Amino acid sequence: MFSKQTYIERRNTLRASMKSGLLLFVGNDESGMNYADNTYRFRQDSTFLYYFGVNTPGLYAVMDIDGGRDYIFGDDLTIDHIVWMGVQPTIADRAAMVGVENTGTLAQLAHMLSKTSGRKVHYLPPYRPEHEVKLMRLLGVHPDNAQQQASIEFITAVAEQRNVKSAEEVAEIERAVNTTVLMHQAAMRYARPGMTEAQVAAKVHEVALAAGGDLSFPIIATINGQTLHNHYHGNTIQEGQLFLLDAGAETPMGYAGDMSSTFPVSATFTNRQREIYAVALAAHQAAIAALKPGVHFRDVHMLAARTIFDGLKALGFTRGNTDDAIANGAHALFFPCGLGHLMGLDVHDMENLGEQWVGYCGVPKSKQFGLKSLRLGRELKPGFVLTIEPGIYFIPELIDMWQQQGINKEYLNFDRIDSYRDFGGVRNEEDILITDTGHRILGNPLAKTIDEVEQERSFLL
Amino acid sequence: MFSKQTYIERRNTLRASMKSGLLLFVGNDESGMNYADNTYRFRQDSTFLYYFGVNTPGLYAVMDIDGGRDYIFGDDLTIDHIVWMGVQPTIADRAAMVGVENTGTLAQLAHMLSKTSGRKVHYLPPYRPEHEVKLMRLLGVHPDNAQQQASIEFITAVAEQRNVKSAEEVAEIERAVNTTVLMHQAAMRYARPGMTEAQVAAKVHEVALAAGGDLSFPIIATINGQTLHNHYHGNTIQEGQLFLLDAGAETPMGYAGDMSSTFPVSATFTNRQREIYAVALAAHQAAIAALKPGVHFRDVHMLAARTIFDGLKALGFTRGNTDDAIANGAHALFFPCGLGHLMGLDVHDMENLGEQWVGYCGVPKSKQFGLKSLRLGRELKPGFVLTIEPGIYFIPELIDMWQQQGINKEYLNFDRIDSYRDFGGVRNEEDILITDTGHRILGNPLAKTIDEVEQERSFLL
Repeated sequence: MFSKQTYIERRNTLRASMKSGLLLFVGNDESGMNYADNTYRFRQDSTFLYYFGVNTPGLYAVMDIDGGRDYIFGDDLTIDHIVWMGVQPTIADRAAMVGVENTGTLAQLAHMLSKTSGRKVHYLPPYRPEHEVKLMRLLGVHPDNAQQQASIEFITAVAEQRNVKSAEEVAEIERAVNTTVLMHQAAMRYARPGMTEAQVAAKVHEVALAAGGDLSFPIIATINGQTLHNHYHGNTIQEGQLFLLDAGAETPMGYAGDMSSTFPVSATFTNRQREIYAVALAAHQAAIAALKPGVHFRDVHMLAARTIFDGLKALGFTRGNTDDAIANGAHALFFPCGLGHLMGLDVHDMENLGEQWVGYCGVPKSKQFGLKSLRLGRELKPGFVLTIEPGIYFIPELIDMWQQQGINKEYLNFDRIDSYRDFGGVRNEEDILITDTGHRILGNPLAKTIDEVEQERSFLL
Repeated sequence: MFSKQTYIERRNTLRASMKSGLLLFVGNDESGMNYADNTYRFRQDSTFLYYFGVNTPGLYAVMDIDGGRDYIFGDDLTIDHIVWMGVQPTIADRAAMVGVENTGTLAQLAHMLSKTSGRKVHYLPPYRPEHEVKLMRLLGVHPDNAQQQASIEFITAVAEQRNVKSAEEVAEIERAVNTTVLMHQAAMRYARPGMTEAQVAAKVHEVALAAGGDLSFPIIATINGQTLHNHYHGNTIQEGQLFLLDAGAETPMGYAGDMSSTFPVSATFTNRQREIYAVALAAHQAAIAALKPGVHFRDVHMLAARTIFDGLKALGFTRGNTDDAIANGAHALFFPCGLGHLMGLDVHDMENLGEQWVGYCGVPKSKQFGLKSLRLGRELKPGFVLTIEPGIYFIPELIDMWQQQGINKEYLNFDRIDSYRDFGGVRNEEDILITDTGHRILGNPLAKTIDEVEQERSFLL
């Protein structure tokens, strides 16, 4: 937890950006897996954490903008609970630690919300079914309408504030990144032919847990890196394959790290792997070099796309005029996703608030294949923390579809591409702070160049 | 997944025990942590798994008892999803693997349920908020009424069927138990003074993940074993302390293991620890020895309680007539929880259906402190799989409360007890199958006697 003053100041900033009404913060509950009391690890709502810091389930908070008062609501434990769970601070004790003087029971919250005298109750978009049920019970909002009735004014104020990280937040993110580096190093130094993907993922997970936190998102640990959101870990890894790891730590305070690395299951890359890896890495490095305040992230994305397209042209996969090809999205056959995203208390920061508000200043996103997956499309500001993660993927289903439909055929050598349909995917990802004058890569260095990666794998020689 | 025939036979057994109507099985969805797409690991509903076997989110199933037809409903992936998630079998393909010929979309399910011609739609108690939202949308049941309107007939039929494990289920549970044994061995061979609890828990978790499954419940790994549901892992472990581990593996098919062990952070137990450990172990062994068909589990619980009370009497903690003390619940100061519980696809099997129906044949549970936490109170049958896990705990808050209120003071030497208020807790737990003639402890042996445990810890010498 940060100091009391941090939370007071955060709430004062938010208060100043809202006109009137009540802000309702719905904290998260425990989530049952296969019955109510067999729970997933508790994860507090990030906006609740940001403004109220209390990391326990079953809470709500209210900011009365007109009255200038902040409240935390929840029910304290009974002696029965204490036998099973040990002595816990009361809600009033916890509230005092974040500078909140007013606390009440859940019944008192329901009473307060039933007597708002016509003032607007602002809430953020629900992203768990529990939020829908709570908003229905407390505000009478039917789940079918809960998304649309979320407050754009509240969303925008939170997004603009949380997007700019303070020095103490950057330090906490860097802590997460340093654990993330250890996770990736553990994989590179542990994975060997004959293991399952699950064994490598388990080792990576162990490092995150041993640091006292957990994962910031489900681990991708796969020989099928071309499947972008692949959480299957059942394959046995073999000589000659590429292993793609996308994994990050979450600190006990809830801040995220997020990195990707790609390494050979063997001690060294094959020539094919080396060539593609070098193109992806060049895009990665070009993108990072371009980061500074005032730059539009869409332009950095396009720079990476161009680097990939030109690099693949030199290898005979693409052809034609690069400007035209990029404008037509031809690169998206290999790079169908975005260059990166903001991160903080969420690994995709504030994704629940809507990318249009967080990453696009309210401007609707492009609908073009590839660009529609870009989560960030605005000018960069000092204090933004983001990932850079271009990749090159050979996705058989996408290759087949484009080839059959003739999509961008003037820019693509499908014969050559087809001979790489079993190649897999390559991605490197790092976490970067936008500084006043440029950028800074966060955390301790992780093997990234071909030589550095092969050095990590040399224990297999 | 078991063979198609297994699922067909399970459904036929269920069909034969229901009179009429439609049985609605609500499969589980992905659950978001801090935004919708950052999900916890997927866990299918266990009853859905038991009868329909398909381990993917977003599904429903229906058994039309009158028409004799079974259905699986869900929406197939689009090409956009395939790019991100890879090619997946269709719902019809998955349904065919479990012998279900009828499939449909979610819209078709909604249509079917809107035209039931007055026939009853049976459903099981919701235990996730998503179930409440789904039941409201599909059946118009308000969340406030969803528990009460669950079908007792459906609950009872499922409970009686799932309570008796088949040979192939026992084999699968034993697989989970064998991984669980490895998890406990890893902890005993890894934990050393100066580590955090989180480091030990991380190692235990790694073993479960590396086996291809996950945990069957959140790990308890603590120097405060007296706090029964303690998931805090932030302490540094030190010489002279006891470490209590309660952890189990879940196989990829969803079956659970569940064991507890207690070992010294040092290489050897102290004399105090040795004495208390020996009493708890005696209760554990006496309880297991008593297990056979026809025995009432409440009697086995009371046997363990008596063994603990008498053992502690010999050590000067308790006094007076044992029969009277047990009848008054005096043992519950040290043993406030139940002796064990059924297990299977859920580590507390079918806890979501209600212990009264699963563990008590519909008879309401005792309200006495201690006994009210006993999850199983019925005659044992061949095919039951259950845990035996008596423990001895020194819970300062409970000691203070009982002493202040004079509860059971004629049976308790509070002065002696008070001098152990920092002792912690001791528990051993194993998983046992009730056979036709007696019982069988499942899985490979884990160190349990004082000598065996100290042998595992001898690497510290």
